[in-house]
Amino acid sequence: MAKDNKVWIYGKHAVRAAVLNKNRQVFKVVVLPQNRDFLSDLSVKIEVVDKNYFSSLFGKDTIHQGCAAQVLPLDEIFLEDLPDDDRPIVFLDQVTDPQNIGSILRASAVFGAKAVVLPEMNSPEVTAVIAKVASGALESVPLIKVKNLVQSIKMLKKSGYWCVGLDERGDKTIGEMDLSGKFVLIIGSEGQGMRRLTRENCDFLVQLPSSGDFTTLNAAQAATVSLYEILRQKRSNN
Amino acid sequence: MAKDNKVWIYGKHAVRAAVLNKNRQVFKVVVLPQNRDFLSDLSVKIEVVDKNYFSSLFGKDTIHQGCAAQVLPLDEIFLEDLPDDDRPIVFLDQVTDPQNIGSILRASAVFGAKAVVLPEMNSPEVTAVIAKVASGALESVPLIKVKNLVQSIKMLKKSGYWCVGLDERGDKTIGEMDLSGKFVLIIGSEGQGMRRLTRENCDFLVQLPSSGDFTTLNAAQAATVSLYEILRQKRSNN
Repeated sequence: MAKDNKVWIYGKHAVRAAVLNKNRQVFKVVVLPQNRDFLSDLSVKIEVVDKNYFSSLFGKDTIHQGCAAQVLPLDEIFLEDLPDDDRPIVFLDQVTDPQNIGSILRASAVFGAKAVVLPEMNSPEVTAVIAKVASGALESVPLIKVKNLVQSIKMLKKSGYWCVGLDERGDKTIGEMDLSGKFVLIIGSEGQGMRRLTRENCDFLVQLPSSGDFTTLNAAQAATVSLYEILRQKRSNN
Repeated sequence: MAKDNKVWIYGKHAVRAAVLNKNRQVFKVVVLPQNRDFLSDLSVKIEVVDKNYFSSLFGKDTIHQGCAAQVLPLDEIFLEDLPDDDRPIVFLDQVTDPQNIGSILRASAVFGAKAVVLPEMNSPEVTAVIAKVASGALESVPLIKVKNLVQSIKMLKKSGYWCVGLDERGDKTIGEMDLSGKFVLIIGSEGQGMRRLTRENCDFLVQLPSSGDFTTLNAAQAATVSLYEILRQKRSNN
């Protein structure tokens, strides 16, 4: 996506967070008449439009909550730019569903992950769907695209990160593992898991606990639980 | 929904689980040509159909995975029928999005919740979307509709359940609470939370931990994390 390409995002939380984000250039905010006062606490000019305006932008079935903004994509952030603290970094290997990516951004914001990293190839553009589902988290959690996931993992390992991959074949459950330190959490796609090379570069493979035969969560649920567990352990160790 | 009303469900996991469920009456399974062998390990007759057949059933934008089944709704299960063991029961108060309900069923299957309970009023029918997102869990976790949520909570409290509601105003995080025993976990809607009466009938209010200003998960993420924590504590106490 070229830097000068304006894009539309929608959803109340997503739009409010974009307007509040100093690093986000917002050109235009449109709302339905009933949302006239939705952003009245912020110094932003809004335009009241009708339903057809929204339908022409997003189609008829989109849950836009009567609120949208035309914005520039955020400046690209690089892995090397991240602060060197002990918050986890989430790597997504073959997770391509924008709903899942949005949901993982949201969990990352709540449970304090530093960034979400995707391979450049085969990953979706940062769409309105990601922004909506992230519910504002796209403004605070960097979504970083890298050329080569495995090379990036190796680089982080060299600078002191442990790489822990979520995999059904893991020896331990994530809760049984000592998660103090700096961690990269790697989540694979729902059916396929991580690619072989990614998996081979993990320091540890862990699984989620399961009560019976039914063992699979989707990628977003798995990431959410894992990020919770990392924060829970950090808090209980302090 | 009348007992003799056939409904369609779609998605590979949902259809396979329905076929495997002895309590589920399946009338017809249809697949796209590339899925001809998808259920070849099961003794079920399948019909190979084309894309248009699927479009006419579900519209063009549905991710049906080329696999659908025409089924009867499952027999209704009542709260009183549930076994008296220490698995948690999930109550949903004003959670109406089928995506969220499906996702909560899935987490319930993985982390061992006994049932998911909804108020009869304002809850969606058991739709194909719920079945798809539940990814088979609809066949193993009872989805129970009750006339009055608060009366049902009171009934369960009398038979020894503690009612714990997820609420931002909770004193403790869920991980700080001792969750041994029999629990009803109550999840409210994303924006509104629980209704006042529901909240007032909780024995405890707990929140999820959060790393900063950004505190909200959606209802499905919140339920998933809570069910994980309950199972984690049970396992670590044994």
